[in-house]
Amino acid sequence: MTYNVQIKVMLLKDLLDPQGKAVQAGLKNLGLNGINDVRIGKHITLQIDADSEEAAKAAADEACKKLLANPVMEFYEIEMVN
Amino acid sequence: MTYNVQIKVMLLKDLLDPQGKAVQAGLKNLGLNGINDVRIGKHITLQIDADSEEAAKAAADEACKKLLANPVMEFYEIEMVN
Repeated sequence: MTYNVQIKVMLLKDLLDPQGKAVQAGLKNLGLNGINDVRIGKHITLQIDADSEEAAKAAADEACKKLLANPVMEFYEIEMVN
Repeated sequence: MTYNVQIKVMLLKDLLDPQGKAVQAGLKNLGLNGINDVRIGKHITLQIDADSEEAAKAAADEACKKLLANPVMEFYEIEMVN
């Protein structure tokens, strides 16, 4: 069966996010006040062929560990969508 | 009040996603088979000071329209997290 998986990869909360800071300044320059703490990460969608939802989630986890996320600087969350 | 907002910005489904294709090939080279249709977009988290959840969502929508997403090539989804 094919499972749709959504993965969010973000910089660890303790790390400075320069891209987010730049966007925050940009929003302020555009007149949008009241927006704070902008952080920007990656959103990845996958389609995984697997026998069960658990197997699909395990495959997604392996993909994150091996390629999609850098555990030194990033954390990830996997969400199954069906 | 402060509202946490999560925004997903992805390339339109009809457009080729070269970054996703490259990651898909990389996963295959790593021996992870069964993963198809990889697409990569942005995940943005904001903290918005607003009087109501509707006002916060409207501010997030304006931020997307003015800066965060390019409507010619991308679509976005806003999710309120509280």
